[in-house]
Amino acid sequence: MKHTTIFHKKKLKLKKPILIEGLPGIGLVGKLAADHLIKELKAEKVAELYSPSFPHQVIMQKKGTLRMLKNRFYAWRNPKKNGNDLLILVGDVQAVTSEAQYEICGAMLDFFHHQGGSFIYTLGGYGMGTVLEKPRVLGSATHKELIPKHEKYGVVFGQSQGSIIGAAGLLLGLGKLRKMQGVCLMGETHGGYVDAKSAQAMLEVLCKALDIKVNLDKIVSRAKESEEFMKKMEQETQKQEKLAESLGKDSGLSYIR
Amino acid sequence: MKHTTIFHKKKLKLKKPILIEGLPGIGLVGKLAADHLIKELKAEKVAELYSPSFPHQVIMQKKGTLRMLKNRFYAWRNPKKNGNDLLILVGDVQAVTSEAQYEICGAMLDFFHHQGGSFIYTLGGYGMGTVLEKPRVLGSATHKELIPKHEKYGVVFGQSQGSIIGAAGLLLGLGKLRKMQGVCLMGETHGGYVDAKSAQAMLEVLCKALDIKVNLDKIVSRAKESEEFMKKMEQETQKQEKLAESLGKDSGLSYIR
Amino acid sequence: MKHTTIFHKKKLKLKKPILIEGLPGIGLVGKLAADHLIKELKAEKVAELYSPSFPHQVIMQKKGTLRMLKNRFYAWRNPKKNGNDLLILVGDVQAVTSEAQYEICGAMLDFFHHQGGSFIYTLGGYGMGTVLEKPRVLGSATHKELIPKHEKYGVVFGQSQGSIIGAAGLLLGLGKLRKMQGVCLMGETHGGYVDAKSAQAMLEVLCKALDIKVNLDKIVSRAKESEEFMKKMEQETQKQEKLAESLGKDSGLSYIR
Amino acid sequence: MKHTTIFHKKKLKLKKPILIEGLPGIGLVGKLAADHLIKELKAEKVAELYSPSFPHQVIMQKKGTLRMLKNRFYAWRNPKKNGNDLLILVGDVQAVTSEAQYEICGAMLDFFHHQGGSFIYTLGGYGMGTVLEKPRVLGSATHKELIPKHEKYGVVFGQSQGSIIGAAGLLLGLGKLRKMQGVCLMGETHGGYVDAKSAQAMLEVLCKALDIKVNLDKIVSRAKESEEFMKKMEQETQKQEKLAESLGKDSGLSYIR
Repeated sequence: MKHTTIFHKKKLKLKKPILIEGLPGIGLVGKLAADHLIKELKAEKVAELYSPSFPHQVIMQKKGTLRMLKNRFYAWRNPKKNGNDLLILVGDVQAVTSEAQYEICGAMLDFFHHQGGSFIYTLGGYGMGTVLEKPRVLGSATHKELIPKHEKYGVVFGQSQGSIIGAAGLLLGLGKLRKMQGVCLMGETHGGYVDAKSAQAMLEVLCKALDIKVNLDKIVSRAKESEEFMKKMEQETQKQEKLAESLGKDSGLSYIR
Repeated sequence: MKHTTIFHKKKLKLKKPILIEGLPGIGLVGKLAADHLIKELKAEKVAELYSPSFPHQVIMQKKGTLRMLKNRFYAWRNPKKNGNDLLILVGDVQAVTSEAQYEICGAMLDFFHHQGGSFIYTLGGYGMGTVLEKPRVLGSATHKELIPKHEKYGVVFGQSQGSIIGAAGLLLGLGKLRKMQGVCLMGETHGGYVDAKSAQAMLEVLCKALDIKVNLDKIVSRAKESEEFMKKMEQETQKQEKLAESLGKDSGLSYIR
Repeated sequence: MKHTTIFHKKKLKLKKPILIEGLPGIGLVGKLAADHLIKELKAEKVAELYSPSFPHQVIMQKKGTLRMLKNRFYAWRNPKKNGNDLLILVGDVQAVTSEAQYEICGAMLDFFHHQGGSFIYTLGGYGMGTVLEKPRVLGSATHKELIPKHEKYGVVFGQSQGSIIGAAGLLLGLGKLRKMQGVCLMGETHGGYVDAKSAQAMLEVLCKALDIKVNLDKIVSRAKESEEFMKKMEQETQKQEKLAESLGKDSGLSYIR
Repeated sequence: MKHTTIFHKKKLKLKKPILIEGLPGIGLVGKLAADHLIKELKAEKVAELYSPSFPHQVIMQKKGTLRMLKNRFYAWRNPKKNGNDLLILVGDVQAVTSEAQYEICGAMLDFFHHQGGSFIYTLGGYGMGTVLEKPRVLGSATHKELIPKHEKYGVVFGQSQGSIIGAAGLLLGLGKLRKMQGVCLMGETHGGYVDAKSAQAMLEVLCKALDIKVNLDKIVSRAKESEEFMKKMEQETQKQEKLAESLGKDSGLSYIR
C-alpha cells in the first residue's frame, strides 16, 4: 500500500452531508464527542481509511483477532426532509508528519466532496494546563460570516492566536482552498487527562448547531472505557518497543531489526 | 534503486504455498525458527528482496567479499500430493519507517499472491521482561474461525491487547485487506537476549499446524552461531559509525560527510 | 495536497521583474526588510504558495477565523518606463527538510521564470553572536561580475566562507543552474533577537541597488509588532504541543494521537 | 529540483572507464586519495551531480561567489592504447538517508554504465580507534576471483565482518546487481582526524592496481589545506545554525523559521 486508501460502500446517496471530525487529540475531547455521537445516533459505518503513514502496527483484539490501524466514516441519515445528513470521522490515530497529514486530509476531502458535502465541523481540545469548573467551547471559522451564528450557540471566537495542529486544522484550511466552509470547535481542557466534561460541553454546542438531540448520560462511562482500553493497548505496545530496543542496546543487535 | 525489488526464479510453480515470515524481531524468536526450518527442510532459495529503505550499508563477509542487505524467500516442496508447499521469508533487516514497511509488505504480498498463495504464518517474539520456564506460544488471527484449530495445537489467543509491530503484523493486516488469511505466532520470551528455547516452542506448534516433522536438535547451537555472527557484525558497524561521528564532533567536519 | 502549489492571478504582465526573497530566518532581518518594502511600496498580493512540507497546522487569527500557513508573492509595478518591476516573496515559514526546500524553491523559480524574471535578491541575517554598533551588509553573488557594482552600494563580499542555509541560498544556487543571476544580502546581526537595525541597514543598500526610495521611519515599530505577534503565536502553539505530549507520557496515550 | 540530476559533457567517449569513488568519509582517507589523484593526473571535470537530498545550503566562496553543494566526476584519458580511462568521483557531501543514498548511487551507476564502464574502486577509511605506524589497506570485493590479484598489490581481505556505510559500499552492492565488479579499498586510520598517511598507503596500492604512476609528494600539504578549508566552512555553518536555534528557543520564534 503506497497511498492513503478509502474503502467505501457504493452509492451512499447522502443528503448535503456535514462532515464531523473527531480524531484523537488533546484531552481526547473531539474523539469522545464524535464516538458518543456515533453510538447515540446509531450511525452506520460506511467507509474505512488506511494509510502507509499510520504506524506500522496492527492491533490485537481481546477476542484473539487482529486488525489494521484505521480511520472510519459513519453516516447518519437525517429523518427531517431538508435536514443535513452527517458523516462522522473517527479513528485510532492521526499521521505525525506534515506530508502525511496533507495527503490524508486531501483524501478525506476528496471523499467528502464526492458525497456532495461542503460544510465541516472539526472537534478538538484546547489545552489550558489547569482544571476548569466550566469549560468553554472555543471556535475558529473558515469564514467571518459563520461567527455570529455560532456565537449564539455559545462558541467563543477570537480567544486564541496560536495554531490548530493536525486534521482539526488542516481539514478546514485545505477545505477552504476548495471553497468549503466550516468551524473548528475546541473544548477547553486541562490537557493532561481524558476529559469527558469538556466533550459534553462541546456536544451541547454541536447539537444546537446541528439542530439534533442526543442523550449525554453515558458519555462519562464511555470516556472511562475508552481511556482504559487505550492505556492498556499503549502500555503493551510501549513495553514491546522498549524490550526490542533494550535487546539492541545490550547485545549489539540493534541494527539487525 | 528507487523501489523495493524482488528478483525471483521464473516459473516457480508452487502448490498452494503457505507463507512463513521470520524476519528479525524481539528475541530473534521468529528468525531462529524460520532459519532452522529452512536448514532442516533443505528449502531452496527462490527469491531475493532489496529495498532502498534498508540501511545504506553492505555486509563484509569473512571470505573477503561483500553483499547487499536483503530479505530472502526459500521454497520447500511438499512431497505429499495435496500438501501445501512452503515459502519461507527470512532476512538481515526490516525497514524502520511506516511508509517503507507498508511498501515492502505490499511487494511481498504481491509476490506471494502471484505464486498462488493465500495463507500466512508470521513468527515473532512476545517480550515478557522475565525469564520463563515454559514459554507459551501466543497467537492472533486474521479471522475468528482460525482460532479453535490453532488452540488445539497449543496456541493461546486473546492474552494481549497491545499491537504487533513490523512485518509480523502488517503482512497479516494488509493480507486481510486482500482476502488472505493467517495467524501471527508469538513465542513468549524475556526480550533481552536471543531465545532458542522460545523458538523451539514455536516450531513445535508450527510443525503441528503444518503437519510436518522437523528435527530440533541443532536449534540451540544454531542460535548461538547466529547470535555471535550478528553481534560481531553489529559491533563492528557501530564502531565505524561512532568513529565517523567523533570525527565530526571534534574537528568540525560533521556535515562534510 | 501532495505537491507545492502556487495560486496566482492570471496575466500578471510584469516588466522584467526582480525577485526579492524575505522569508523568516536569522534575526528575522530578511523578513522585516521585505515586509517593510511591501507596505511602503503598497505592493499588491498576486500569488500564494502552499506546501505539504509546511507544518500541519493552521493559524487562528484574532478576528476568529483561521488560515493556512503560506508564502506570498507581492508585485510592485515600477512607474519608470524601463524600470524593473518587483516580485517580493514573504511568508510564515520555510520548510525544514532538504527535499522540501529543493522542491519549494524549484516551484518558486518556475513561477518567477514564467513571469519573465531572471534576477534575484535574497535577504537574510548573518549571525555574529555579538551586538553591533554599525551592522554591515555582507553579500555573496551567483556571478563574479556582480560584485563590483554591489560593492559600490556598500555590500561587503568574501567575508565568510560558511554556507547559506535555506531559501536565501537555494533560490540563488538553483537559479544559477537555470542561468539566472542574483545576490544574497546578509545583514550582520546578533542572532538572538529580532533586529530592525540590521534590516534598516539592508534596506538602505537594497534601495540603492534597486534605485528606489523607501521611507524607513516605521521599520522599528513594525519590527516590534511583528515580533510580538510571532512570539504570541509561537508560545500558544508550543503550549498545545507540550500538553499533547504530556498527555502521552503520563497516561500512556502517546501513540493514539 | 525533485530528483538527483547529473549534468555532463556530451560525447565523452571514454575507453572502458574504471570508476574511482572518493567521497567524504572516515578520516577523509578516500577523499584525500581521490582529490590527489585528480590533481596529479590533471583529470578534467566532465560531470556534476546535484541532489535534493544534499543539505539545503549553498557554499560561500572566498572570492565572494556562492555555489551549490555537489559531487563531481573527473575523467582521465589513459595514454596507453589498451589502458582503461578513469572516471574519478569526488564531492562535498554524501546524502544521509538510506532512500537518498540508494537513489543517488543508482543515478551514478546509470551514468557510469552509459559511459561504458563496469569496474569500480571505492575508497574509504577503516576506523581503528588507535594511531597506526603502518596503516594497511583492507579490501572487500564484489566477486571472489578479484581477491588473489589484489592481495598481490598488498590489499588485506577478510579482516573485518562489519559493514561498509554509504556510497563506498552501496556503489559496489548495487553495481553487483547490475553485473558490475569492483573492490572497496579501506585505509586503516585512527578515525578521529584527517589522515594523509592512510591516503598515501591507499594510493600506493591503487596505483599498482591501475598500473599508473602518481607523485605522492604533495599529499600531506594538500591534506592540510583540505582539512583547514573544511573545518572553517563547517564551523561557520554550525555557528549560523546554533544562532538560528537559539533565537527560536529563547524568544519563542522557532517554528516561524
